[in-house]
Amino acid sequence: MSDAIRLDGADLARTLREELTGKVSVLNERYGRAPALSVILVGEDPASEVYVRNKHAACAKVGIRSEIIRRSADISAEDLRELIVRVNEAVDVDGLLVQLPLPAHIDPAQVRSWIDPHKDVDGLHPENVGLLASDQPRFVPCTPLGCLRMLEHYEIPTEGRLAVVLGRSLIVGRPMATLLSARSVNCTVTLCHSRSRDLPRICADADILIAAAGQPQLVEEDWIRPGAAVIDVGIHRIQDLSHPKGHRLVGDVHPNAERVAGFLSPVPGGVGPMTIAMLLENTVRAFQLQKGVQEAVV
Amino acid sequence: MSDAIRLDGADLARTLREELTGKVSVLNERYGRAPALSVILVGEDPASEVYVRNKHAACAKVGIRSEIIRRSADISAEDLRELIVRVNEAVDVDGLLVQLPLPAHIDPAQVRSWIDPHKDVDGLHPENVGLLASDQPRFVPCTPLGCLRMLEHYEIPTEGRLAVVLGRSLIVGRPMATLLSARSVNCTVTLCHSRSRDLPRICADADILIAAAGQPQLVEEDWIRPGAAVIDVGIHRIQDLSHPKGHRLVGDVHPNAERVAGFLSPVPGGVGPMTIAMLLENTVRAFQLQKGVQEAVV
Repeated sequence: MSDAIRLDGADLARTLREELTGKVSVLNERYGRAPALSVILVGEDPASEVYVRNKHAACAKVGIRSEIIRRSADISAEDLRELIVRVNEAVDVDGLLVQLPLPAHIDPAQVRSWIDPHKDVDGLHPENVGLLASDQPRFVPCTPLGCLRMLEHYEIPTEGRLAVVLGRSLIVGRPMATLLSARSVNCTVTLCHSRSRDLPRICADADILIAAAGQPQLVEEDWIRPGAAVIDVGIHRIQDLSHPKGHRLVGDVHPNAERVAGFLSPVPGGVGPMTIAMLLENTVRAFQLQKGVQEAVV
Repeated sequence: MSDAIRLDGADLARTLREELTGKVSVLNERYGRAPALSVILVGEDPASEVYVRNKHAACAKVGIRSEIIRRSADISAEDLRELIVRVNEAVDVDGLLVQLPLPAHIDPAQVRSWIDPHKDVDGLHPENVGLLASDQPRFVPCTPLGCLRMLEHYEIPTEGRLAVVLGRSLIVGRPMATLLSARSVNCTVTLCHSRSRDLPRICADADILIAAAGQPQLVEEDWIRPGAAVIDVGIHRIQDLSHPKGHRLVGDVHPNAERVAGFLSPVPGGVGPMTIAMLLENTVRAFQLQKGVQEAVV
């Protein structure tokens, strides 16, 4: 039995960053400044700290200016709203994202709606969610967009094929399902979640399986149709004393999936780097939108 | 073999209209005026004419004030926009819908975005589409909402069940899929379309099948899982010289489905009357929203 072809997100993200570097340089020359991203980080969650620093570093690599705006965890909702409005109004900032999770006293749904939908590089403002579902995407959330780019790059057929999406989060599962059933992609799409019955059987029909359930190693080889393309969106740190650090990273897909799948994205090195590359792409798109330039997303 | 239980939309719509009549009367007393709907009808499509008159009559029955604003088919997009803005600003109008289809020179996507999202009783403005997909529904499109109300009324279990939606239109299929996978409904949902492979096999797994493909009598008995609930959204006029009028109305589901399905909505008398009832419900909701009263949609 041959092993699955690796969907190398790290490598593809590198290629995409090189393309973006050229594009940013051209835009910089044409308009006199580079695209700019502001990231608001509330509180001191260590994982968020790492994510935000990675985003900042990735921006720097391609020539996007970025700033991290830090606020303490006890910021009031009203003060956060005022800060967001200020960034919305800043003419030299193209993209804005508020790093999640937020402290419990702040409603993330409200925060999503405060961001100017034309600067909403995470694609989570209701207007952008609705435009995606209406076949007029403006900003597509970064993780599903990254998954689609991987399918495109590895020329995995989608037309008429069955895609199963595990997990219905606002950030991954739902926009992923919407994107896969868009007219330019044309998958038949099944959206599953923790209350779904017969999960293994449903997954076993999938030509394309997107695992975004948030459960370590949930998807095993007998859930997978032989030859299917499997994209693993999960990332979990599990204890492993045999590793030098005492832990290792695993996804939503069990390693034995490799024996059955035709294509499999690794964790780490699959969806993670693609998500950040798509944030860069969305920031460049936001800049172009401000300048009146529109390019098709998908 | 026993025949399917009939999902009697006409009867349920009557019950719902009675409830709404009471509600409208209370609101009228409390706020000094009844909820009000404006319908813009562009051109002279005979089917649209019938739909608009039916909506107007249904409003009258429950005490909702409604007006039909007619414009000729050669209205410019700009003039239509100005008209919509005027209705948006009218303080004594709660709901606004623009009857479809529109003449070819007018972009329906633009029209959707011009309507004040707080008056958008068709639920097609991108912001409302996005709120539905974000589990914060404000206005849900009338046909899918009517289908859900039928499932609720006949106590058809949804939790963890597989729902298959045939057709991915913006008005029916997509919002139906979104609604069925909402946390309060909890179906596993497969969204199919004309490019889907193996349609009969996919449908045959469904506990709930929503036929909104726009193809007369597409769904036959061997597409249906025994005992499944089948909702027929299609409505087509086909020639039949044995009928007094020379034609009759059929749906997307073949009559032989009745032998296999557990529940089946008839055409006519199923989804049609429910769609109009939901327009009334949404208009009352728009009135309440304007008055600061919020009720959960689903």
